[in-house]
Amino acid sequence: MPASQRPTLAVVGATGAVGTVLLQILSHRADIWGEIRLVASPRSAGRKLAVRGEEAEVAALGEDAFDGVDLALFAVPDEVAAQWAPVAVARGAVVVDTSAAFRTDPEVPLVVPEVNPHAVRMRPRGILAGPDATTLTMIVALGALHAEFGLRELVVSSYQAVSGAGRAGVGTLRRQLSLVAGTALGTSPGDVRRAVGDGTGPFPEPVALNVVPWAGSLHADGWSSDEMAVRDGTRKVLGLPALPVAVTCVRVPVVTVHSLTVHARFQDEVTVGRAREIIATAPGVVLCDDPDAGEFPTPADVVGTDPTWVGRVRRALDDPTALELFACGDNLRKGAALNAAQIAELVVAERQ
Amino acid sequence: MPASQRPTLAVVGATGAVGTVLLQILSHRADIWGEIRLVASPRSAGRKLAVRGEEAEVAALGEDAFDGVDLALFAVPDEVAAQWAPVAVARGAVVVDTSAAFRTDPEVPLVVPEVNPHAVRMRPRGILAGPDATTLTMIVALGALHAEFGLRELVVSSYQAVSGAGRAGVGTLRRQLSLVAGTALGTSPGDVRRAVGDGTGPFPEPVALNVVPWAGSLHADGWSSDEMAVRDGTRKVLGLPALPVAVTCVRVPVVTVHSLTVHARFQDEVTVGRAREIIATAPGVVLCDDPDAGEFPTPADVVGTDPTWVGRVRRALDDPTALELFACGDNLRKGAALNAAQIAELVVAERQ
Repeated sequence: MPASQRPTLAVVGATGAVGTVLLQILSHRADIWGEIRLVASPRSAGRKLAVRGEEAEVAALGEDAFDGVDLALFAVPDEVAAQWAPVAVARGAVVVDTSAAFRTDPEVPLVVPEVNPHAVRMRPRGILAGPDATTLTMIVALGALHAEFGLRELVVSSYQAVSGAGRAGVGTLRRQLSLVAGTALGTSPGDVRRAVGDGTGPFPEPVALNVVPWAGSLHADGWSSDEMAVRDGTRKVLGLPALPVAVTCVRVPVVTVHSLTVHARFQDEVTVGRAREIIATAPGVVLCDDPDAGEFPTPADVVGTDPTWVGRVRRALDDPTALELFACGDNLRKGAALNAAQIAELVVAERQ
Repeated sequence: MPASQRPTLAVVGATGAVGTVLLQILSHRADIWGEIRLVASPRSAGRKLAVRGEEAEVAALGEDAFDGVDLALFAVPDEVAAQWAPVAVARGAVVVDTSAAFRTDPEVPLVVPEVNPHAVRMRPRGILAGPDATTLTMIVALGALHAEFGLRELVVSSYQAVSGAGRAGVGTLRRQLSLVAGTALGTSPGDVRRAVGDGTGPFPEPVALNVVPWAGSLHADGWSSDEMAVRDGTRKVLGLPALPVAVTCVRVPVVTVHSLTVHARFQDEVTVGRAREIIATAPGVVLCDDPDAGEFPTPADVVGTDPTWVGRVRRALDDPTALELFACGDNLRKGAALNAAQIAELVVAERQ
């Protein structure tokens, strides 16, 4: 396509944790875009950021910011997306939103290009959403296994990175670590808590040298919003509205990359050999599974990469229809920015 | 009992991570012991350690160390326990072992005093064992729930502290943290790994700013020894030899206190209200469960305490017979030293 006919892309929330990664991703993927317009809160307007090797000035979020925009990628808090996505649509843009604002809206498809690419075609509100980063840690691998074995039940536990709570989450972990590292802290009652004081930032408890069984806000009956997002998101992307899903979300002192343990029960009997084949050949998934050689995915290896990494593939010892997996994925890349960029590319491809 | 008739206790492995905690525990519990003899490898012999407010000299492990000993608590590696526990028995002692050496031996009871106290009576080999620390993180709460609802299936994921790998584990985490803390590390590919280098100590991967889905040695079919210990231990303590148990064990950068997510399915329908009552009133268990007020257990709060802490109690949304829990327990105390001390006290009480 001649450059003059290429679609204009707006990145809304260009200065945030996900927005920053989105600009890196747009700079490295096949360049299908005409103008890439950077948009952020008025407070950040005028800042210059690099994208595709060039500096671009950040425009203030407002109605005019969407003039002439074909696709708008939103990487902003829920309430900002709820307010401004319809404005962007009214100005003629298709919106791809990474927030929770529209995920459960029945008129907004929840899209993972490797799993349900056709979902982008039906978008009565002009809005497409990506699932939460925790669902995106497993859903590509799970979709491939579901296609062959037929998923029947999920039990999931998360090991979620602090960058899932944005820049404030990362800053909080770094501050807390600088207070506790190199000391004898962490073995006696209350010493981590004393060192950290009230500086728990976006987390309800200290996260350095600790794990916190809570992510998101209170939903109902003791469930957190992150846990509900995994259940709702998995059901919606896989088209299994009654799938039993039990989730516990836990924050861990990792900067970036969410990890999950997955107990997945299927319609049919599974074999580890076939499961490993499916995982190894599924687009967007890497099998990393040789415990004898010390090979399994960890956040330290997965950070900055695009695929879902899967290891520890075992058949449940007491159920020939169930698999155990450990999955890792970069929560800022496939967990948010990359998935959104892929959706936007798919929308453009469908138009041609 | 007059002090002269009180039983003699030997603590074998008195200088190790568990042994050190055992001496603190023996110093604070009701004092039923005559002599407390400290035993360790010849390398540590002659060192002086405090117990019950007095200094005691460490004796070298050897046949003579067990002369006149009534009870011997072993807190040593598996192979040392396998070699020396029978020696202690031959010299007339009852052995309480915290290692894995005898756990699966059908002639060695696996004892958790709150759950199966009567098991101490039948000890044809003169040896009693405690379960692994991961099983001990949940088994007291689970035993109470089982007594009422009838346990039918378990899916467990662990968040295991580095002190589970002994002093070397703690030293490794501290060293790694001092290398990565206060820097911008942890966000770019490979930077944690580069900073840590080959200094992964007893762990197969860096554990600072990371989670490692592996604990123990390779068992078979991709399962780790820690995962098998949870399945075997839970079945044996609860007397449910065919209980389906699916476990994934993961190491996290926490110094002390193991945490678990537990998906427990029962024979009968459960209610959260009754489950919380059972947990709140079970001896050795504390209910800490008010997410609205930010209350759930975390290692930073639980370290140094005796009970199992349970929070995040929910009924599975798609299965009225299943509960979700998050449990924390000090892996050096109830997870090892405290449970052993309780078993020893139970043996003495049964004699009287």
